[in-house]
Amino acid sequence: MSKKLIIWTLDWVPEGPRGFVRDLRLRWAAEEAGLSYEVRTVPFDGRETNHLDRQPFGQVPFLTDGEITMFESGAALLHLARRSEALMPRDPGGEAETVQWVVAALNSIEMVTVPWWFLTISGQADNGLVGWMSQRLAHMERVLSERQWLAANRFTVADLLMADVLRVSLVRAHGERPATEDYVRRITGRPAFRKAHADQMAHFSTADKTRTKRQ
Amino acid sequence: MSKKLIIWTLDWVPEGPRGFVRDLRLRWAAEEAGLSYEVRTVPFDGRETNHLDRQPFGQVPFLTDGEITMFESGAALLHLARRSEALMPRDPGGEAETVQWVVAALNSIEMVTVPWWFLTISGQADNGLVGWMSQRLAHMERVLSERQWLAANRFTVADLLMADVLRVSLVRAHGERPATEDYVRRITGRPAFRKAHADQMAHFSTADKTRTKRQ
Repeated sequence: MSKKLIIWTLDWVPEGPRGFVRDLRLRWAAEEAGLSYEVRTVPFDGRETNHLDRQPFGQVPFLTDGEITMFESGAALLHLARRSEALMPRDPGGEAETVQWVVAALNSIEMVTVPWWFLTISGQADNGLVGWMSQRLAHMERVLSERQWLAANRFTVADLLMADVLRVSLVRAHGERPATEDYVRRITGRPAFRKAHADQMAHFSTADKTRTKRQ
Repeated sequence: MSKKLIIWTLDWVPEGPRGFVRDLRLRWAAEEAGLSYEVRTVPFDGRETNHLDRQPFGQVPFLTDGEITMFESGAALLHLARRSEALMPRDPGGEAETVQWVVAALNSIEMVTVPWWFLTISGQADNGLVGWMSQRLAHMERVLSERQWLAANRFTVADLLMADVLRVSLVRAHGERPATEDYVRRITGRPAFRKAHADQMAHFSTADKTRTKRQ
């Protein structure tokens, strides 16, 4: 029997990012795959430098699987997908399609939506990434209007990641994208997402009490 | 014997992006792995819409490997890495480390450097991503000052991708980053990079002649 996975996240975050911290992706994937896991934390205070040996950019999450500790939620998802067929088919074509859409979520969508959001919350809502983002989201709207799943005609980790990426940009970006909205609603309606989301909210809510006591 | 790989790129691009079009990554990986390949093209004119069935964002490259055609250079690199141990070790720890740094290049570095560059060439050089980019590049400088290779104490596809990502930002971003400069110089000094780069330059240079004749 394999050892329990450990998902590492912060011990506390402010209200804003709750429900969006990327440990959610790993909780969700583990729930889909039926892999047992526990959640452990590193401190929010001093996060820029206090765990650089395990996450060289000072971020979370990272994942421990026996001897292996790895960072980058996208990489950890691919690692879990290699462990469980629930997340990725085993035939080379299905695997290639899944990996392709995982990378598309990271490097074609999130590469535009996250910097756009960063500029927006920095007070530059009217920034030069708006048009680029609209174009990318329009491409995704076309793709999602033509199919139910991104890869291999079934749920995969590519849907998990893309729905999480689009969930964030939908909340933030205006626009008429019915297929995208429908897709995000359907994928995040899965019991595994709802459990992962509720667990993360509970985690940070519990942390509030400890933090208040400490301060 | 496996079939020849096909790397798809544009039939022509303007001077600016030559030497940087991402088919270079796939040529380079195939050269490192000793995999035979040919290069085929889709038209530059009408690229926004003329190959959306094979690349849903209207970009290049994409890769054909027998029955499989896949887009996203990062995903295609991971696919080639699964075919060749020259690009990624076969033990689970070495594979996890390699995938982790491939995703870091795509989602922690390029996610900041590419939008920063996009804003810069759009006339917004003094944009809100400058500080974030400096911070990320400083983290990479620290990492690279402590090691020769990103993963598994050997050359992997993670070095290939990270060096390509950093090569682009070094050309464009100011700053004192000796370890990064040294790393990029060393990795791009490999014969496989030099061949891939020369071949791409020759490809577009030959295309100039055809294009002039056609116009």
